Amino acid sequence: MDLELSRKVDFRHEEIASRIKEKLYKNGTLCLNFISSPGSGKTSLLERTLDALKETYNLAVIEGDPETDRDARRLEKLHVPVILINTSGTGASCHLSPAEIEQAVDDLLLETPPPDIIFIENVGNLVCPAAYDLGEHHKVLLFSVPEGCDKPAKYPVAFRESDLVLINKMDLAPYCDFDLESLKKDALSVNPSLEFITMSIKKGDGLLEWFSWIEKKLAEVRKQASK
Amino acid sequence: MDLELSRKVDFRHEEIASRIKEKLYKNGTLCLNFISSPGSGKTSLLERTLDALKETYNLAVIEGDPETDRDARRLEKLHVPVILINTSGTGASCHLSPAEIEQAVDDLLLETPPPDIIFIENVGNLVCPAAYDLGEHHKVLLFSVPEGCDKPAKYPVAFRESDLVLINKMDLAPYCDFDLESLKKDALSVNPSLEFITMSIKKGDGLLEWFSWIEKKLAEVRKQASK
Repeated sequence: MDLELSRKVDFRHEEIASRIKEKLYKNGTLCLNFISSPGSGKTSLLERTLDALKETYNLAVIEGDPETDRDARRLEKLHVPVILINTSGTGASCHLSPAEIEQAVDDLLLETPPPDIIFIENVGNLVCPAAYDLGEHHKVLLFSVPEGCDKPAKYPVAFRESDLVLINKMDLAPYCDFDLESLKKDALSVNPSLEFITMSIKKGDGLLEWFSWIEKKLAEVRKQASK
Repeated sequence: MDLELSRKVDFRHEEIASRIKEKLYKNGTLCLNFISSPGSGKTSLLERTLDALKETYNLAVIEGDPETDRDARRLEKLHVPVILINTSGTGASCHLSPAEIEQAVDDLLLETPPPDIIFIENVGNLVCPAAYDLGEHHKVLLFSVPEGCDKPAKYPVAFRESDLVLINKMDLAPYCDFDLESLKKDALSVNPSLEFITMSIKKGDGLLEWFSWIEKKLAEVRKQASK
């Protein structure tokens, strides 16, 4: 009986996710869902990304946090619409759910003009957020060098469900036992089509490559939307 | 109806947890439950701890991992009983549950003599494992410097439910924006009775203080058991 209940819920999740994706395509809006461990640098990455792209594109953020509005406040300083979802109030504090996202996406798409890009900052957690399709076009996994090279084998779902791995804190690589090639090899063994960008958000390395990846993905969504 | 179901489940969890604790006290066995983000150094810490204490005490490990037996194999090399629970096979892959732990504890307590200390390495995740009482005497939060000082405010449940915070990777502090006093202050504001030990597992700093904390807690359990 428990199993059936969980199946019903999953089915509903999938239904909502495809409804969200449909709305995004209709508006030509790209949606990226960031997943990572706590402290990998998601909010710092968003700060740099919003700052670099906000003159060219209409941007918006959906910020998932178990508690507090610290990250949302950091991002609001960049004068971009931010919707904060405190997951502790919603029962399952370990991830954002499609129903929460649908409500936020609906609100954001009412803006005139609607956003070109919506960034979702999921809860810092490599397990649960990986299991939920939020209707996003791509999951982007932000990984940081001090977390260690064994993560693709230990958290395979996160690597399997993502399309891009951003490898952050490369400036700490000389002080950690970090083997980039072994990390990539292990990640590709669970997901052969993964792309990688190495970066140091702190030093600004790798950001241009990341921005151009976003623009490429936006062009793909717009092409699909115009069909 | 969902709410009632979830209450029933929680009630059962609590019941199992107190049964586990009773069995542990009966045997004078200390049980510590490690929680942390992925890559904070839990397995390395256990390796150093088992190696240092195994001549003096009977030790055992319950190893929770979403998939793979990598960590369990690392620990088995130290000739200590290790029970591996792959959480991906059990439905909720983001944490260990009391029912899984009860089965493992029952098995370990059959050893002759029973273990003096059982270490539980929970799934690398700062959210879900914090919410489950596994019957352990203490939750120990392993935090690492590159994760950043804002974690107590963002993951308050993990800090509230723990009795000790081990602050690892202190050797990386000079390369990160790390403010130890602000971290402690924020952590104490959610849990005023928290203890802290700073360490670098890599360099061996802080380990003796940690070992003596364990011995103090074992003495407390034995004192309680003899009553």
